[in-house]
Amino acid sequence: MIKKISHIAIIVPDLDASLAFWRDTLGLELSHTEEVASQESIVAFLPAGEGEVELVQPTTDTSGAARFLARRGPGLHHIALEVDNLDEMLARLKAKGVRLINETPIAAAGGNRAAFIHPESANGVLVELYEAPRQ
Amino acid sequence: MIKKISHIAIIVPDLDASLAFWRDTLGLELSHTEEVASQESIVAFLPAGEGEVELVQPTTDTSGAARFLARRGPGLHHIALEVDNLDEMLARLKAKGVRLINETPIAAAGGNRAAFIHPESANGVLVELYEAPRQ
Repeated sequence: MIKKISHIAIIVPDLDASLAFWRDTLGLELSHTEEVASQESIVAFLPAGEGEVELVQPTTDTSGAARFLARRGPGLHHIALEVDNLDEMLARLKAKGVRLINETPIAAAGGNRAAFIHPESANGVLVELYEAPRQ
Repeated sequence: MIKKISHIAIIVPDLDASLAFWRDTLGLELSHTEEVASQESIVAFLPAGEGEVELVQPTTDTSGAARFLARRGPGLHHIALEVDNLDEMLARLKAKGVRLINETPIAAAGGNRAAFIHPESANGVLVELYEAPRQ
């Protein structure tokens, strides 16, 4: 049911300064940047093979990303795994007693469906389950 | 020069308890476990597409992984990006003033070559550059 690592999200205070490292120094390509209203952030997408590194700059002081940045500084925020059927996966996780942040799917970047597992159920890791649109 | 996301490493205190979530609940497959002497850890490898989730249980109290676990609890430890030529990449990073933990490659799991970039140069993220053996 899990198809691949979809992306790794890194919270940063300044997208341009971060691109100087991830794009210009490390050599990843920048596919595009997108304002993700639901996350109150601007996100830069840098493909790496079949996955992506995402740099997330909060645009407000109130989002989860902004509070993470204020509390812990820049760093790894979450990993996203692509699933083929998000509804089935969420039903399965609920049945097994996994603590979910989103019991029903939310809108992720690009308008796709996603849901987050609480770090308490996943060894301290914030895990996004991401469902790509069917081709 | 960067080919893909090679793996995401998560430090855990108890591999069996963690497999109950990542394998049995989430549905990832366990390919194998391996004692990685250079990291003083036992590592479980769970493929996801072209990448892997790695669960790392320290086997001593002195390794970087053990100190991370003691200080911060379980969680995301590092991401690994696969490069086609590690020597070239390290030369490039040094020329650009990036702070490296390993100026020359070390032995990673499977006997492959790797080097770590210091989080200070990478938005608080510990980044492993991993060179797979040439086919």
